[in-house]
Amino acid sequence: MSRDDLTKIILPEEKIPKFWYNVQADMPTPLSPGLHPGTKQPLGPADLAPLFAMGLIAQEVSTERYIEIPPEVRELYKKWRPSPLFRAHGLEKALDTPCRIYYKYEGVSPVGSHKLNSALPQAYYNKVEGIKRLTTETGAGQWGTALSLACKLFDLECMVYMVRVSYDQKPYRRMIMNVYGAQCVPSPSNLTESGRSELAKNPDTPGTLAIAISEAVEDAVQREDTHYSLGSVLNHVCLHQTIIGQEVKLQMEMVDDYPDIVIGCCGGGSNFAGIAFPFIPDKIAGRNIRLIAVEPAACPTLTRGTFAYDFGDVAGFTPLLKMYTLGHDFTPAGIHAGGLRYHGDSPLVSQLYDDGLFEATSVMQKGVFEAAMLFAQTEGIVPAPESAHAIRTAIDEALKGKEEGIVKSIVFNLSGHGQLDLNAYDNFMAGGLEDITPSDEEIQAGLKGLPVL
Amino acid sequence: MSRDDLTKIILPEEKIPKFWYNVQADMPTPLSPGLHPGTKQPLGPADLAPLFAMGLIAQEVSTERYIEIPPEVRELYKKWRPSPLFRAHGLEKALDTPCRIYYKYEGVSPVGSHKLNSALPQAYYNKVEGIKRLTTETGAGQWGTALSLACKLFDLECMVYMVRVSYDQKPYRRMIMNVYGAQCVPSPSNLTESGRSELAKNPDTPGTLAIAISEAVEDAVQREDTHYSLGSVLNHVCLHQTIIGQEVKLQMEMVDDYPDIVIGCCGGGSNFAGIAFPFIPDKIAGRNIRLIAVEPAACPTLTRGTFAYDFGDVAGFTPLLKMYTLGHDFTPAGIHAGGLRYHGDSPLVSQLYDDGLFEATSVMQKGVFEAAMLFAQTEGIVPAPESAHAIRTAIDEALKGKEEGIVKSIVFNLSGHGQLDLNAYDNFMAGGLEDITPSDEEIQAGLKGLPVL
Repeated sequence: MSRDDLTKIILPEEKIPKFWYNVQADMPTPLSPGLHPGTKQPLGPADLAPLFAMGLIAQEVSTERYIEIPPEVRELYKKWRPSPLFRAHGLEKALDTPCRIYYKYEGVSPVGSHKLNSALPQAYYNKVEGIKRLTTETGAGQWGTALSLACKLFDLECMVYMVRVSYDQKPYRRMIMNVYGAQCVPSPSNLTESGRSELAKNPDTPGTLAIAISEAVEDAVQREDTHYSLGSVLNHVCLHQTIIGQEVKLQMEMVDDYPDIVIGCCGGGSNFAGIAFPFIPDKIAGRNIRLIAVEPAACPTLTRGTFAYDFGDVAGFTPLLKMYTLGHDFTPAGIHAGGLRYHGDSPLVSQLYDDGLFEATSVMQKGVFEAAMLFAQTEGIVPAPESAHAIRTAIDEALKGKEEGIVKSIVFNLSGHGQLDLNAYDNFMAGGLEDITPSDEEIQAGLKGLPVL
Repeated sequence: MSRDDLTKIILPEEKIPKFWYNVQADMPTPLSPGLHPGTKQPLGPADLAPLFAMGLIAQEVSTERYIEIPPEVRELYKKWRPSPLFRAHGLEKALDTPCRIYYKYEGVSPVGSHKLNSALPQAYYNKVEGIKRLTTETGAGQWGTALSLACKLFDLECMVYMVRVSYDQKPYRRMIMNVYGAQCVPSPSNLTESGRSELAKNPDTPGTLAIAISEAVEDAVQREDTHYSLGSVLNHVCLHQTIIGQEVKLQMEMVDDYPDIVIGCCGGGSNFAGIAFPFIPDKIAGRNIRLIAVEPAACPTLTRGTFAYDFGDVAGFTPLLKMYTLGHDFTPAGIHAGGLRYHGDSPLVSQLYDDGLFEATSVMQKGVFEAAMLFAQTEGIVPAPESAHAIRTAIDEALKGKEEGIVKSIVFNLSGHGQLDLNAYDNFMAGGLEDITPSDEEIQAGLKGLPVL
């Protein structure tokens, strides 16, 4: 069948990549080292050992181009991988665009998002190193759900601190984590010193990922049998997600196509990294390809932030990382894309962006939900609000192609479905959503909180 | 790869069946005709024309063994079909059973269940015959969601009457139907004469499928441009679902296996029919295979009902169908498997059951949710409560196989995921579920309401 006849492009199970792709091997500018939050000296593996498994720390600093996926993890990937690459025939027709639109659908994972790609190896490395319990934070709830299942599959306990605004907006998220045997509490909570201190300052806070991270880290360092787990930002998380883009390359080859534009939404960065990093070597080699990171206008880290050392959390427990940031005190508005409400960004994504290897754009939430509705009504799948940021930009590019009479091949990462985000859609349909952009003063206030080195 | 290595058995897109399988061609006892609700004489096509498209009426009475799937429908099936057949490695390990357990996963459809298999052709035939609007009822919400999307894809309006207990338990269901552009109201409603009459009798009624059907039929007959659509029970609905079992046969062949036991949950019957009917010719030819329909103990149509002519709805608007029934006045308890709360059963399923071609069993809801939790924690997918009835029986059979030291090959229909049914899980985990069985008096009272011919 030709590429125009096919709806889904499916790789056989044995074609699941055996290696993750490590972009650190190909970066024009090497990564700046993480700094110890106290001494502000470059971090060594020993500094990270109280929080992370050694297998993950090794990945964090490796510059090997390919890192083997443990067979135990690859076996579990088979539950949904290789994930399908869809040709968006319905959406193309509705837009009347000459462009070819493809989407990589990660929502077929049992938890409904790409997050399981990293949750499984994180649980695995901790399990083999004798850890009994993992703590984490979650924004939209996708990451918490994925880690809950991964912990259950590797027989670990799981404790999730969920940003309060998402906890309240999405009651089903807590329930599904419970089904997988995890405990989930709204953050800030009364269970940690950092949670109590936030609640004392602002009892009605919607919470942020940065606060929830402080809680999860504080919990983890207090127990010998417990490690901490992060769903984005860090190098090893981006690494695990590269399985997405590697599959996309194989799938595009199957239909004799290659993308002109690759799009991913960007919060902490692992979603975008997952689909885009495997194309970086081609980009460096001079191939004509655009990689676009899409962030919410309400939390415009790449488009309005600065490239500087900052903490990953509010309390200053995490290492200092050089990244695009709005300042760790910046509290994004309670938009319906909880997974993108993060002040910082992956150091890998940040460095590559600073080197001009990809573009960034920001979009308003009403336009995002308009795009999501059109997608649901033409392609059938109700997208997660986070993933819908990528849809918005894919549609904009396809319409631009139509206007200019240029046929482009556009691929985006449909990182998850939105069946547990229907409150947000209901809100949108009832006219209850607002377009929110921080003022220049708010941006400046956030940046004033950057640590002085 | 051998069948023990594979996790998913995937057919290529071009292997989507081109024909539905019509069990009417192979029945030892032909179906008793439907009767007109007024005259009680056998129905002709003209009697059904106010409600259904002629293309569907033709399928309702056809005895052709294979009926072609319209290319427009088959094209849309490609959005998720062929659906994967999974080997349940995780569940088998947890049960420590020598049996091979497979599940056909229909939850990969964009609406999350098998219901889209029939919603698409129903919308299609109505569209080509000039109809502008469809009405329907929905119990759990799976059918209403599927018809909402199908109508949007074929540019029809859609009106859904949703059983009130499900409407209240599952607020996300109404929202997803709205995302697909449909209108959804709780039933009984004030919009129809039959709804108003039910509310007058019992203002606090949880509703039933039978009441919701009355409302949807009443709505449809009052408008020239409107037809009615049913998500189960009727012959053409069972026909459309046979794509499931046909794919299963091809997938089992791919791994050189054949089932000893095929299991589906049974409410109106199309779920069970979908996986089981394609095996009926083998069964008739003497092949040693058990086909098991699983129903809730709270609504034991096959196991405690009677085989008689009855109405499909409460108000007596529908044709009289010869089927296993508990009587159209029987109100099943408000269990968390709204899709199985139906007093009657598909006439095809009923006749084949009466002829001894398959078995039926009933299960209690606490055991169903225990099975669902074990499945979620070992296989990752949170099942719909309806589908979990099949899981319960698959587990029971696998444990029996272990006890008896017999290796059996067990296949069940995992007809949908339960991400919009998490309230039910929450209720179960909080100890809020009860095992409910109607008393013999309640069963007798229901049967007393059967129409006298």
